[in-house]
Amino acid sequence: MRKRIVIVGVSSAGISAAAAARKTDLDAEIILISEETRWPYSRCGLPFVLSNEVPSFKEVRLFPPSYYRLMKLDLRAGISVKSVNTDTKTVQMETLDQQRELVEYDRLVLCTGAASAIPPIQGIEKRGVFSLRTVEDGMRIQKWLENAENAVVVGSGFIGLELAHALKNLNINTTVFERCPHVLPEWFDKDMADLVHEKIQKQGVKVIVDAKIEEILGGDYVTGVLAGGEQYNADTVLLATGARARTQLAKQMGVQLGKFGAIQVNSRMRTSIPEIYAAGDCVESFNMITGHATLSLLGTTAERQGKIAGINAAGGYATFPGVLHSVVSSMFNFEIGATGFTEQYAQQNGWETTAGTITAKTRAEYFPGGKPITIKVVAENDLGKIIGGQIIGGEEVTQRVNLLSVAIQNQMSVSELAKADTCYAPSVCSPWEPVILAAETTMMRRNRRREP
Amino acid sequence: MRKRIVIVGVSSAGISAAAAARKTDLDAEIILISEETRWPYSRCGLPFVLSNEVPSFKEVRLFPPSYYRLMKLDLRAGISVKSVNTDTKTVQMETLDQQRELVEYDRLVLCTGAASAIPPIQGIEKRGVFSLRTVEDGMRIQKWLENAENAVVVGSGFIGLELAHALKNLNINTTVFERCPHVLPEWFDKDMADLVHEKIQKQGVKVIVDAKIEEILGGDYVTGVLAGGEQYNADTVLLATGARARTQLAKQMGVQLGKFGAIQVNSRMRTSIPEIYAAGDCVESFNMITGHATLSLLGTTAERQGKIAGINAAGGYATFPGVLHSVVSSMFNFEIGATGFTEQYAQQNGWETTAGTITAKTRAEYFPGGKPITIKVVAENDLGKIIGGQIIGGEEVTQRVNLLSVAIQNQMSVSELAKADTCYAPSVCSPWEPVILAAETTMMRRNRRREP
Repeated sequence: MRKRIVIVGVSSAGISAAAAARKTDLDAEIILISEETRWPYSRCGLPFVLSNEVPSFKEVRLFPPSYYRLMKLDLRAGISVKSVNTDTKTVQMETLDQQRELVEYDRLVLCTGAASAIPPIQGIEKRGVFSLRTVEDGMRIQKWLENAENAVVVGSGFIGLELAHALKNLNINTTVFERCPHVLPEWFDKDMADLVHEKIQKQGVKVIVDAKIEEILGGDYVTGVLAGGEQYNADTVLLATGARARTQLAKQMGVQLGKFGAIQVNSRMRTSIPEIYAAGDCVESFNMITGHATLSLLGTTAERQGKIAGINAAGGYATFPGVLHSVVSSMFNFEIGATGFTEQYAQQNGWETTAGTITAKTRAEYFPGGKPITIKVVAENDLGKIIGGQIIGGEEVTQRVNLLSVAIQNQMSVSELAKADTCYAPSVCSPWEPVILAAETTMMRRNRRREP
Repeated sequence: MRKRIVIVGVSSAGISAAAAARKTDLDAEIILISEETRWPYSRCGLPFVLSNEVPSFKEVRLFPPSYYRLMKLDLRAGISVKSVNTDTKTVQMETLDQQRELVEYDRLVLCTGAASAIPPIQGIEKRGVFSLRTVEDGMRIQKWLENAENAVVVGSGFIGLELAHALKNLNINTTVFERCPHVLPEWFDKDMADLVHEKIQKQGVKVIVDAKIEEILGGDYVTGVLAGGEQYNADTVLLATGARARTQLAKQMGVQLGKFGAIQVNSRMRTSIPEIYAAGDCVESFNMITGHATLSLLGTTAERQGKIAGINAAGGYATFPGVLHSVVSSMFNFEIGATGFTEQYAQQNGWETTAGTITAKTRAEYFPGGKPITIKVVAENDLGKIIGGQIIGGEEVTQRVNLLSVAIQNQMSVSELAKADTCYAPSVCSPWEPVILAAETTMMRRNRRREP
């Protein structure tokens, strides 16, 4: 009998689950339910439309409509799921014009994603305050920015800095506020974060750390923010204060949640209810190094998990190996990326660590166009295993993050990575690969510490 | 007592040995003996000076003179070693003006490198025939090319293609001849090599494979070549037909050579004579996958080996892990790189293999500036372990080669690599990292083969 797989939510996780399910079961009926009315798109692309690096919001569409026909995916847009009955295995759906429909499922995949986390700041409801999650959000922001002169970005994670970059590209005076003592607090240690801070300020963006927004000022419209007792003028406030798993439906269904309040899944991405899988921002992931629960909230994690959920929901077998929070982006004239634990996080969680940082160039010294790159490698002190890496560079940061991620996945020690057989040509790298140098520096610092 | 370390040869291996020896023993006397009269330089940079990407031969100098003072390295240039007496531990040196000097050593490190392999072709002595090994070679070629119109490159390895690129940059009609059935025969399988072939031809360089140069035509001066019975006009012939270890001194000393005729060393880079180490193009390496002897002849290998030799010669302890022949270069508008075994080599050596190849883009589909990239991953069929990779792409090839190299070093299977936690931003990569897709494709092809 033909199996029916219903996927709720069609961002990265849902789309990936659908494709994997189709590849696993060529006959299954696959229904994708989307709240949004537009073709599925890349959320990660939105800041780059605002920055004008991508010409329009139309561009970030994931696939042409023909893709869904080709893959025989029944994409239903503009439909919300009101409830799920796990006994009768039915989904109660409602269209935009409030037509209801009951759909049976054999397997259900919850990819309900996350919503922007809105901090409880007084005045947050004022006009001119935005968060960016959907194309509609993006369009509203883009239109608003046409008349903006002074903007505040709240939060200096990756999205916050991408937004600051976009604002600067539009010649809007921009100030980034970060509650923590340094930018990128989840991804970078202070030493590396301070380099990013400095680079951003050099681009003309003001960055204020250790600063909580106490109030958003103005009448109906934003006129400024109050932070640390000081007033800052602003006609625009962009919130980049993270996201929270959307679990309302899961809760209603009785699906078990984890310690962070997101959906708990096993390594096959199955929830506490056997026929129900979940993937993406709405689930709790686990860390590849420790096996402990963690929230990932990354598009790549959503895609990787969606694939596993799709394969298993369709009757295949695949397991998810956990996450390392590998992340990268480009902004202004540089790229930043990280994977694994920061040294600060590791130490706060009881690890003893040694880190090594080097600054080198991306090409041979004598080759024109080489750019500086700074790499920090974090190792634990017992076996010298690599547990994290942070990179700031003018080019080719992405694959170096991936290299460190794969090193962590393989539980490599810094000594082992220092022996890697890297390639070289003066036009594309330096003779001593900077990642390897950083590993070697960490190894030598660790050896020195171990000497009596 | 102060130890004296004498290093013969100051290209990549010698320079690296000296630096590592100095870091290991701050007091040792370190003497570097160079045949050449100029400051040590990067051989890998020479083709890029010919192409005008690097403005002059002066640029490829490795370090400023102050480096040698700072590191307390006694660099003696323009000196040849006439003989070594391993009983008295003395080196007989001779200056350019034939002054002789006897120098004692505690440890000797042979970094005598390689010389261009000159094939026994009739007419090879004619004016207009060159090979590129030293700055002097490069200067002669550069001067000659001022009046060149038609050039032939013999050999389509990395250096051959870099030279073809340089010639094309100088608007010289260029034809590359390759004896084997496809270009890059040591590094690429035919399927991937044919893509390179096509890309080079599109740049206006003629490539003729399966073609042995039978004769170099002309009087005193080259006027053409004879290949496959056909005549091709040429005023210039650049030989890129590999290199041979320079082992004359080692032989004279009674140092044992290996099966390929290069110096045999153990994993500490020690020769058959305890106080004598060797590193770089003059030694026989071993393959990281098989442990079997192999010739590497790469600058990176020389540097890695030089470091190990230097540490050990200075009384430290370090071992060399073997080579994977990881290689990369840029030419025309693309980059190529490889690591490990080609499928053809593996199969010829008794492996059963599965390979997967994918073509993707280096950025998100919708992000401007993304370039095509084609990646081939080769796995052996028993455990699915990765044994090789080949990449052709518009950008960011280097670190993907390194990623595959580290995967091989860790004996990863394609299934394991397919689970890597890669990073993503639309501006710098695609959501599904192409290396991971290639591993996954290989995994799926292998799984299909294993089905009954």
